[in-house]
Amino acid sequence: MSEQEVAGLARRVLVGHGMALPQADAMAGVMAAAERDACASHGLYRLSGTVRTMRAGLVGLDAVPTLEQRAPGILVADARRTFAPYAFQLAMPRLMAMASAQGLAALAIRNCFHLTALWPEVEPLAEAGFVALAMTPSQSFVAPAGGTRPLLGTNPIAFGWPRPGAHPFVFDFATSVAARGEIDLLRRAGRQTPEGWGLGPDGQPSTDPAAILAGAMTTFGGHKGSALAIMVELLAAALIGDLTSAEARQLDGGVELAPLHGELIIAIDPARFAEPGGTSFTDRAETLFAAIADQGARLPSERRYAARQRHLTGGIPIGKPLIEEVEALLPAALSAT
Amino acid sequence: MSEQEVAGLARRVLVGHGMALPQADAMAGVMAAAERDACASHGLYRLSGTVRTMRAGLVGLDAVPTLEQRAPGILVADARRTFAPYAFQLAMPRLMAMASAQGLAALAIRNCFHLTALWPEVEPLAEAGFVALAMTPSQSFVAPAGGTRPLLGTNPIAFGWPRPGAHPFVFDFATSVAARGEIDLLRRAGRQTPEGWGLGPDGQPSTDPAAILAGAMTTFGGHKGSALAIMVELLAAALIGDLTSAEARQLDGGVELAPLHGELIIAIDPARFAEPGGTSFTDRAETLFAAIADQGARLPSERRYAARQRHLTGGIPIGKPLIEEVEALLPAALSAT
Repeated sequence: MSEQEVAGLARRVLVGHGMALPQADAMAGVMAAAERDACASHGLYRLSGTVRTMRAGLVGLDAVPTLEQRAPGILVADARRTFAPYAFQLAMPRLMAMASAQGLAALAIRNCFHLTALWPEVEPLAEAGFVALAMTPSQSFVAPAGGTRPLLGTNPIAFGWPRPGAHPFVFDFATSVAARGEIDLLRRAGRQTPEGWGLGPDGQPSTDPAAILAGAMTTFGGHKGSALAIMVELLAAALIGDLTSAEARQLDGGVELAPLHGELIIAIDPARFAEPGGTSFTDRAETLFAAIADQGARLPSERRYAARQRHLTGGIPIGKPLIEEVEALLPAALSAT
Repeated sequence: MSEQEVAGLARRVLVGHGMALPQADAMAGVMAAAERDACASHGLYRLSGTVRTMRAGLVGLDAVPTLEQRAPGILVADARRTFAPYAFQLAMPRLMAMASAQGLAALAIRNCFHLTALWPEVEPLAEAGFVALAMTPSQSFVAPAGGTRPLLGTNPIAFGWPRPGAHPFVFDFATSVAARGEIDLLRRAGRQTPEGWGLGPDGQPSTDPAAILAGAMTTFGGHKGSALAIMVELLAAALIGDLTSAEARQLDGGVELAPLHGELIIAIDPARFAEPGGTSFTDRAETLFAAIADQGARLPSERRYAARQRHLTGGIPIGKPLIEEVEALLPAALSAT
């Protein structure tokens, strides 16, 4: 399938369940981009959970996010319970204008449902020449280092950096040691997790995926990853006046729908830092990237960009079971059952 | 000793080697605060390396940093080869005023020598009510994940968050798995490092501290820590037009003096994010901190604050060998040899 065909399929499902077209377009675009980049976990696979979330009745299906500039460098988007990509699309031009005028600016997206993928937001900012940092809580599945019970979210952090004539440098990772989906896949396969992925409901280390899902996941890199996960709760929940991962999970009631909370994005205009006559910010960065490649190490998004290259020329392979799952979500199929 | 006595001793050494009083005051204050907080690695122990750096001739001993506001949200301090704490002291009031006016602001300290402690900068910002994020490169001692050779610095990241009626929430950690000093202490003790701390000069994993010091240290948390370490090079070197860790090490020429490069600090005024009538940003944060404590986990700076409490009442214990080492640096002692 082409990226456009994947987006069209996702759009039909979302619109068929009552989502107004502009929001469905934004969501379908992110899912199609994920399939194009071989990020299956944020692709069409997410449609069934999204539809479940929509059916639960809280999503602002035909709402339009509002924007408010609260300070010269602070833009607040009230997503009005739409999904984050729609609010981001509406807010991005103003965020960039503010970052260029002030040197840097922050966008708080409040009151949004979230797929917990952040690269679809930092990458376009970097494509447009901005340095971008983004973070969002999720639901409280993760114990703080030294703790025994779930409290923090998987709390991803993403970063984008513009590169001349190349895809941006982008990373986007959970501050938990593994993704919740990975643990669930091991459970379904009847396998154990590696050591250090989580704790059972008794607060003791476990390698039983079912015990970890009922207990707590752990943060990556011990107390350092835990400190970063706490920072995400503080910046992307407490600071912006939206729900923490614990509050989002409480609201969810254990159903594990898409979480309703906020996101923080900081955009920096590198041109405003530049020293007149100094070394260009891209020169030092490109020297660094070349030195990383030179020793055989990979940049964070290389695999994603390689998949994109393959799929844009050869088409995106979507497995038959996934297609069938998505087609079963189409309203025609639903009305036939 | 009292904090004031420790500062006085450090000041005498620095002034005795030709540093003008305002810079020596700022440096001595940081070293005394480190002793007070039981952070020995940034306390008086650093004096001998600092004096070695001063003797190498590059330090701006009587220079005064200059400040330039390059955009409404961007302040650039040219430290003029003084140590970072002096430039930070001079720039902090203006950074706070800018953050309050714009909602957030960035301070780039360029052309500074650095002790690679960042909590002395994010903590006072948080004490003053600001949320603060800081980072700095160091020298290229660390291999990127998947690589074999040193390229990145130990690249610390620090974060501060204001708390009403309590010390700020502060973390400050290297993105390398261990500190260089820890590895050197193991070498001196004839011991091996734990697995995963570094690579030998052949690029293969090693637990021999001497081999790691001659080879490369590793990043914490695998490819995630590596991505963060790269981000620090991009934000606190390339973006602000100052040296990367590789360039700083080249300049140093393998002598391992204090590195000469830059630092980036972002300050956010939480009041400018506040929703009129919404939950206070401190309420959600304090609920989170209480839940962390409730499961027996510690906040990042708790040990440091506990040491401070002890030392402010009972005095700071400084070992005799360290006192002797510092007294040997005093000009009177030097002229007697």
